[in-house]
Amino acid sequence: MMHDRRTLIRNSMLLGAGMALLPQPGFAKADARAAIRKAALANKAADIKRLQDWIGLPTIAAENRNVAEGAAYMEELAKAAGFTGVRQVKTDGLPGVVGFMDNGAKHTLGIYFMYDVKQFDPAEWQSPPLEARLVDKPGWGQVVIGRGAVNQKGPEATLLAALHAMKAAGVNPPVNLVLVAEGEEEIGSPHFRQIVETPDVLAALRKTAGIFIPAGWQNANGKVDVNLGSKGIIELELIASGEKWGRGPKQDIHSSLKAMVDSPVWRLVHALNTLVTPDGNTVAIDGWFENVRKLTPREKELIAKVASAGDEAQQKAQLGVTHWIDDLPYNQALERLAQEPTVNIEGLVAGYTGPGGKTVLPGRAVAKLDLRLVPNQTRAEATQKLRAHLDARGFKDIELNVSGGYDPTETAESSRLIQAELATYRALGVEAALNPRLAGSWPGAVFTAPPVSIPAGHFGLGSGAGAHAPNEWYLVESTNPKVAGITDATMGYVEIMYQLAAGR
Amino acid sequence: MMHDRRTLIRNSMLLGAGMALLPQPGFAKADARAAIRKAALANKAADIKRLQDWIGLPTIAAENRNVAEGAAYMEELAKAAGFTGVRQVKTDGLPGVVGFMDNGAKHTLGIYFMYDVKQFDPAEWQSPPLEARLVDKPGWGQVVIGRGAVNQKGPEATLLAALHAMKAAGVNPPVNLVLVAEGEEEIGSPHFRQIVETPDVLAALRKTAGIFIPAGWQNANGKVDVNLGSKGIIELELIASGEKWGRGPKQDIHSSLKAMVDSPVWRLVHALNTLVTPDGNTVAIDGWFENVRKLTPREKELIAKVASAGDEAQQKAQLGVTHWIDDLPYNQALERLAQEPTVNIEGLVAGYTGPGGKTVLPGRAVAKLDLRLVPNQTRAEATQKLRAHLDARGFKDIELNVSGGYDPTETAESSRLIQAELATYRALGVEAALNPRLAGSWPGAVFTAPPVSIPAGHFGLGSGAGAHAPNEWYLVESTNPKVAGITDATMGYVEIMYQLAAGR
Repeated sequence: MMHDRRTLIRNSMLLGAGMALLPQPGFAKADARAAIRKAALANKAADIKRLQDWIGLPTIAAENRNVAEGAAYMEELAKAAGFTGVRQVKTDGLPGVVGFMDNGAKHTLGIYFMYDVKQFDPAEWQSPPLEARLVDKPGWGQVVIGRGAVNQKGPEATLLAALHAMKAAGVNPPVNLVLVAEGEEEIGSPHFRQIVETPDVLAALRKTAGIFIPAGWQNANGKVDVNLGSKGIIELELIASGEKWGRGPKQDIHSSLKAMVDSPVWRLVHALNTLVTPDGNTVAIDGWFENVRKLTPREKELIAKVASAGDEAQQKAQLGVTHWIDDLPYNQALERLAQEPTVNIEGLVAGYTGPGGKTVLPGRAVAKLDLRLVPNQTRAEATQKLRAHLDARGFKDIELNVSGGYDPTETAESSRLIQAELATYRALGVEAALNPRLAGSWPGAVFTAPPVSIPAGHFGLGSGAGAHAPNEWYLVESTNPKVAGITDATMGYVEIMYQLAAGR
Repeated sequence: MMHDRRTLIRNSMLLGAGMALLPQPGFAKADARAAIRKAALANKAADIKRLQDWIGLPTIAAENRNVAEGAAYMEELAKAAGFTGVRQVKTDGLPGVVGFMDNGAKHTLGIYFMYDVKQFDPAEWQSPPLEARLVDKPGWGQVVIGRGAVNQKGPEATLLAALHAMKAAGVNPPVNLVLVAEGEEEIGSPHFRQIVETPDVLAALRKTAGIFIPAGWQNANGKVDVNLGSKGIIELELIASGEKWGRGPKQDIHSSLKAMVDSPVWRLVHALNTLVTPDGNTVAIDGWFENVRKLTPREKELIAKVASAGDEAQQKAQLGVTHWIDDLPYNQALERLAQEPTVNIEGLVAGYTGPGGKTVLPGRAVAKLDLRLVPNQTRAEATQKLRAHLDARGFKDIELNVSGGYDPTETAESSRLIQAELATYRALGVEAALNPRLAGSWPGAVFTAPPVSIPAGHFGLGSGAGAHAPNEWYLVESTNPKVAGITDATMGYVEIMYQLAAGR
């Protein structure tokens, strides 16, 4: 994913007894589930092979790598899993892929796939990132290591495995399905809206009870989060240059000239300095909080639950952090995580960046920022306010290049999708925590905002890690009784269809 | 050189008639000079070969490349030129080389050599940087292209050529010589003081009328500057990190966490912001101007001459600058260049610095600064004041790593060395401008400060450019009648010995 939407709040306590991953009797026939599980076990080798082959074909939009091949491959995967009307949808950028499955059911479920992956450097990997080798990972079990393993081909292949298992078992899925897939997620989904707004796709999506992206984010205690929304984001560069400023040098010159020549780097530092309070923690851009809605009592209640169930010390240790902002207690720190819009400096680049020094007065300086937005801010509003803020302080020359971003997104706790997720986790004995707002970002607003206006989120059992990093992995055979391997995760996708079908 | 000491003020007007590079009758016998010139012409091919061979052996202290070989080669070059007592002098770092030449003369001249060169990337060069090829350069003539060509092996080899020519002509140099050479100039001469303070070297240096480094900095109009001093410099890194701060992350974490975790990058930005005025142009470090002495009326007078002789439009065009600081007129901009201490940001590095963005909250941010100092600031004082300034604002955790630097240096206009330089240029018809203070920096303070306490500067005819850059060159055969080729430059070094010998 472009923005790691794996929640970073680890809620580590598994309340109650151990997990029971066997299907529970309930709204649908237990014998159908048993037949599907049997088929899934029989298919397992083929399911793993399907994932490995897919990992072997990395689509990377930023490098224009396998962009046509990846779309064609996605079509084949969708067709093989039983989707009909599978086709590529053209956009002003790369195409996407859509498919449909009318099972004559009352309810329809949307499925969102990304089939692109993040760039990678094979030299940094312990096993070749496209070979998708099976490796033993102590404490977890057998995992597949490869680019896209958890982000997002592993979970997506597991959902496909569920459809293959149902087909093999002769069981009709209890819901209709709409699949929308894109190959530009890792560059910020710049044309995805064009895919979902294609008339027949839009009409089909609007009939769904909601849409999710398959995810494998169980933690070591088996726990998952159910996210009710996520912050928005703008990624951008602020660039100060002699070229645009009309002062300072147009290229790097000898640093001794600083005494008579202005510095675009200092200009950038001073402009940056106006964007946040001196502690760096509160946005100081004019009018920034105008449309920010405060957390509701229910959201605070959910955060308090997360805080009391969470392991603050473990999280701090994992992050290498000893104090939250303002030394806040955990509960308030988590509230801040959910409610506070941020201006973060991802990167600074100016002049000489190698070892030691070099006596230059740089002609150009760049700050890479990400701005996290909360409801009801919008990306368009925030971009305009940042520009106006800079202009009002005389920084009209500082370039503001937005490279991507999403609006914030919200999905109602009461929605059929969220209730089906919760019911599924309950049915499978998986501890799930409602997270009112993911601090990370994903293109969910494409679904939750008009004209689509449907619930959207993440769902899935199973585990993995290393999105965007070397040695990305996805769990295949679990040795941890609390965490699903690929067959139990497959049954999770089966179960949510039944739960959605049975829901009110 | 570590800090390009080529003056950046180009004084382009050649007053008076064209240059006469033939020796002038004067203080010494014209027939001696004629014999030396004849020998220099006869030696020319060997002189060029000597330079080419030397370029072929790059000593680079930062890479520990040819550090022993370069010192041994320097010994051989000195011996071959007639120096006696040539030896390596050990230091806590790399050794230097010293040599002496007692010609029974009344006066003694010091010669400073650096035999190391700056790093280079052959891929950026039009001809291989170690091959020292002879190439035609339109408007200049035949030049040698190679790393170290002008910085500083070309001019130094030309001084050696003068000694070889005198030896070949059977003419005893009219002054005694002391040679001190180092192989660590490009890393800031960290151990050079140990060489000059070696008892016999110190004693020999203190007997000299002054010391110069050979230089080939005639501009296209043949003009040279005579520098009466230079600014000092401190190069340093300011580093903000979660590690030292005890807040923020110890390594890069996901940027969504900015809402609950402090940012070392913002901390660095806010600390930097306190170092200069909002326009970036006046140092705001506590007590910075305490020991700054103002320009004297004579220094202002010299700057006014430089300004009126200079080509402001050409200099602006060359630098890619359209306005000086505060839109100052040229004369005042040049005064500022000489008088103003500066805090320059050479480089900024934090977080993700590649193309596009990456959603990290960096654990560490680095600003590379160079601080130029003027008399009577010292490097030690300035470092202490910067530290105290940061500490007083609560930035005790921000690391201040000084990588190198020099004190400012001054040499009296009335000194025998400067007067001999001026007399030499006059005698050879070369337009020379007194520059009261070079804004760049060099290790001259090692000589001008106690315990050596001698005049120090730069001297030489000839031309070249590209120090620290690709395609560095040094002029061998001049097609520009105003600029010396290698033989005329050789005679320049002969002439200054005569002028020094004849001076009051």
